Amino acid sequence: MKLQSSQYGKGRVRVVKIIREGAIHTVKELDVKAMMRGDFETSYTHADNSKVVPTDTIKNTINILAKDHLGHDAERFALYVAKHFVAKYPQIHEATVEVKERVWQRMGDQPHSFTAPGAPVPFCHAHVGAGGETLESGVSDWLVLKSTESGFEGYPKCEFTTLPETKDRIFATSCTATWKWSAHPARFGEANAAILAAMVKPFCENYSASVQGTMFEMGSAALSACPEISEIHLAMPNKHCLLVNLSPFGLENKNEVFTATDEPHGQIEATITR
Amino acid sequence: MKLQSSQYGKGRVRVVKIIREGAIHTVKELDVKAMMRGDFETSYTHADNSKVVPTDTIKNTINILAKDHLGHDAERFALYVAKHFVAKYPQIHEATVEVKERVWQRMGDQPHSFTAPGAPVPFCHAHVGAGGETLESGVSDWLVLKSTESGFEGYPKCEFTTLPETKDRIFATSCTATWKWSAHPARFGEANAAILAAMVKPFCENYSASVQGTMFEMGSAALSACPEISEIHLAMPNKHCLLVNLSPFGLENKNEVFTATDEPHGQIEATITR
Amino acid sequence: MKLQSSQYGKGRVRVVKIIREGAIHTVKELDVKAMMRGDFETSYTHADNSKVVPTDTIKNTINILAKDHLGHDAERFALYVAKHFVAKYPQIHEATVEVKERVWQRMGDQPHSFTAPGAPVPFCHAHVGAGGETLESGVSDWLVLKSTESGFEGYPKCEFTTLPETKDRIFATSCTATWKWSAHPARFGEANAAILAAMVKPFCENYSASVQGTMFEMGSAALSACPEISEIHLAMPNKHCLLVNLSPFGLENKNEVFTATDEPHGQIEATITR
Amino acid sequence: MKLQSSQYGKGRVRVVKIIREGAIHTVKELDVKAMMRGDFETSYTHADNSKVVPTDTIKNTINILAKDHLGHDAERFALYVAKHFVAKYPQIHEATVEVKERVWQRMGDQPHSFTAPGAPVPFCHAHVGAGGETLESGVSDWLVLKSTESGFEGYPKCEFTTLPETKDRIFATSCTATWKWSAHPARFGEANAAILAAMVKPFCENYSASVQGTMFEMGSAALSACPEISEIHLAMPNKHCLLVNLSPFGLENKNEVFTATDEPHGQIEATITR
Repeated sequence: MKLQSSQYGKGRVRVVKIIREGAIHTVKELDVKAMMRGDFETSYTHADNSKVVPTDTIKNTINILAKDHLGHDAERFALYVAKHFVAKYPQIHEATVEVKERVWQRMGDQPHSFTAPGAPVPFCHAHVGAGGETLESGVSDWLVLKSTESGFEGYPKCEFTTLPETKDRIFATSCTATWKWSAHPARFGEANAAILAAMVKPFCENYSASVQGTMFEMGSAALSACPEISEIHLAMPNKHCLLVNLSPFGLENKNEVFTATDEPHGQIEATITR
Repeated sequence: MKLQSSQYGKGRVRVVKIIREGAIHTVKELDVKAMMRGDFETSYTHADNSKVVPTDTIKNTINILAKDHLGHDAERFALYVAKHFVAKYPQIHEATVEVKERVWQRMGDQPHSFTAPGAPVPFCHAHVGAGGETLESGVSDWLVLKSTESGFEGYPKCEFTTLPETKDRIFATSCTATWKWSAHPARFGEANAAILAAMVKPFCENYSASVQGTMFEMGSAALSACPEISEIHLAMPNKHCLLVNLSPFGLENKNEVFTATDEPHGQIEATITR
Repeated sequence: MKLQSSQYGKGRVRVVKIIREGAIHTVKELDVKAMMRGDFETSYTHADNSKVVPTDTIKNTINILAKDHLGHDAERFALYVAKHFVAKYPQIHEATVEVKERVWQRMGDQPHSFTAPGAPVPFCHAHVGAGGETLESGVSDWLVLKSTESGFEGYPKCEFTTLPETKDRIFATSCTATWKWSAHPARFGEANAAILAAMVKPFCENYSASVQGTMFEMGSAALSACPEISEIHLAMPNKHCLLVNLSPFGLENKNEVFTATDEPHGQIEATITR
Repeated sequence: MKLQSSQYGKGRVRVVKIIREGAIHTVKELDVKAMMRGDFETSYTHADNSKVVPTDTIKNTINILAKDHLGHDAERFALYVAKHFVAKYPQIHEATVEVKERVWQRMGDQPHSFTAPGAPVPFCHAHVGAGGETLESGVSDWLVLKSTESGFEGYPKCEFTTLPETKDRIFATSCTATWKWSAHPARFGEANAAILAAMVKPFCENYSASVQGTMFEMGSAALSACPEISEIHLAMPNKHCLLVNLSPFGLENKNEVFTATDEPHGQIEATITR
């Protein structure tokens, strides 16, 4: 039997880069796949790994190059990475780099608060029974991110604790919010929009001492903004963006390059009333 | 053994309603779940269906009520439907109606062209090899819909044909577009935005004789708008919105109430060059 | 601008075929995609649909050919369908037919009861608080199907009813079952397996007058089989398999060819206790 | 405004445990969610984190307790973890632990080779055109895992390398295999089963020096087993199971507790011919 063709590489390398232009941040979130073709036949046929650049090294390379070469145009980064592999390793004859981008759109003119366009998904629930009727509205999949002005400190430590305290982290979540109507507004669409706008304000403007604290501020703002709702429930998975350790490569990572993760995730939930 | 509690109903009833205000259309797309509680114990314990309003009837009801009672606020519709079930069938003691909405946002000030906010997802592909380099950009999950000015006629009929010809249907798709760069623009982000804007124009403004015809117009517009691309590939699943037959209920459906479907779907693909 | 290449067709055509060999049924469930290449350029460039076999006709064809040509090997059917399109329509020069199969594995030596191998997914929930502890186990995504011995009759009709009564339909569901432990068995793994085995028996052996009736029998069997559980909750979406109307094509469909659907779906839920 | 209720914790903590009974391994893969209720109000209302056990500590705890307390019954582990949180931290009044299990079923009587039941999904592709016909069959989502007898050594190191060499790791993949027919077997179903069975053998029985090497052995075995196929394409994402570092907690992890990951993943692909 013989090897007709082959390729290998790393998929789903999720890089988040904060581009800082003064106090103005831009967030690029990429999902990168890098595949190599070249002189790798003996790894298949003779258990010879001597030319196989590990896929772990491919992942490291993407993160390292993101520090200095990922800017506003993902195209330039993809091309740079592909060229790097072909230039650096003689056994790599071809490289393909595929990038999918999650767009983080600036909220208004906020310097470091973002939302993924298109979300959130509106929903409503009506219940009618012997005890009368209840009506709730809400949104799911509301992706919001602040690239600074968020920390987590002062928590209890025990022998199972390894988390370092921080005054500066990324806060990213896919929020689900559900509010209960005590009266009907003239137009639900407008009232729902006002509730979302009210929640955006503390998210953008206040330092976040914890997801819990920001959640309470957002829920309180919603209740203040809309007299027709009596309570609001918020659920926020903490979509951790992990700072990439670039020190093994002689680089300092000043909160620039992160790995986006979906799992494991913190999960914070609360119901706030008047 | 005994029945402690139960509920039943219909989920994922996908209603599309075109609300017409003069020539201005609004599109509401809802995914509805309606669940009933009440006097249904003997259906579980004694094979007695005499009180079980079929889930098929629940689905019919949602479609029928959508004709006259689904307006701009999904909340009012959800509550109306829940009340209807409790009022009409004495054996139903409680009804819960849950609605998730796919938002269709008007494109600019177009009267009947819409996009789902947030999509599309940008991507790019770089390839570097012995033969040089290639670079492509594109978008996936670009949800666009026109609520009229689309038809399909003049196709060949055979003994396996049942499709009726139409001059007025909904055209909804989740477009994937991929364009190849022959030169690098100053800013990819701006060039990509210009390409999308160019494709929107024929989609909104021209009568669509087929997905094929509109696809060619969109691809041609992209090539005209951006001299740095040499070809464009488009793939459009035809996300059929089926007109609901309301005549069994004595109602005429003047292109108002549709069922959104994901499967089966038409699939149209083409590559357009200069 | 010019058309460089194109193809079109229908995707996600979901065909279910019951193959009857005496009283022994075999169920084939296919998800078919059929794509055409050929002389279709003017449909893109000149709004000329005169050669475009509608994708709806493609879907009809797959269903019609399934009646006589879909047997145990999906490969033979795929090839037959591809040849049919090229042979029948001169404008079609190439056809590609892609088939994905959902395997329905016979339960033991049952003649008409099946399960999708691999499912179900086991889960458990532990809660510890001031009021003590509770423990539940269960399974989700338990795909089971009976190809006959299921009906639905005797339900109330009203002006919104269109469903015909039937004594013979396919019963397919993706069951989620959750049971509560009142005592701990010696081995949870064995107890869970015994509970599943007990539920299978009435599903396979008894005529189903409704999802509700079968659900109660299954739950009762679980409680009988395992003294350590105090109650069981079952949730069964009714994954409707719709009989395909072949009469427009001069064929009789004797419960042989169905369309599998995921939406809309019935949803039946109950909690059964001792 | 006031906090009515709240809970928080960690979701999607994916633990893999190899249970060793002599040379016989058992693999438990759990997806754990642990949620806490208690005296946390001031974290929402007063930016006071002094009682908030970090969700990162919750994740550590699940991994640490898995070492000694995760056995054959997931129920006992879930209950143990829930009790631990309530007992250890006075501010936690209630804990809920939810576990979903991916079942890894022993392949035959192999000591350390496993498959997830239900997968793989069969597929086939037929193409008919002017150049004749081609037919392929295959499977996707074929989940296989070996818990030892796999390593990766002798690869090139550079300044971007951090991966340590290993002679003992978990090899887990979701294989897609596609084979091309040069002749038609009497029964495709039987031929396909023979091809899968042939590929299983080197996967189970041979030491794996790399995904590449095992892939070539599997493809070669398929070609040897079935004279009617001319080539086979294999694609294997390397679903890395990362050894959990338990040394900060004074524990040695002798290849017992791992974190299952979906991203990033290695991706190895090859076509093998005669």
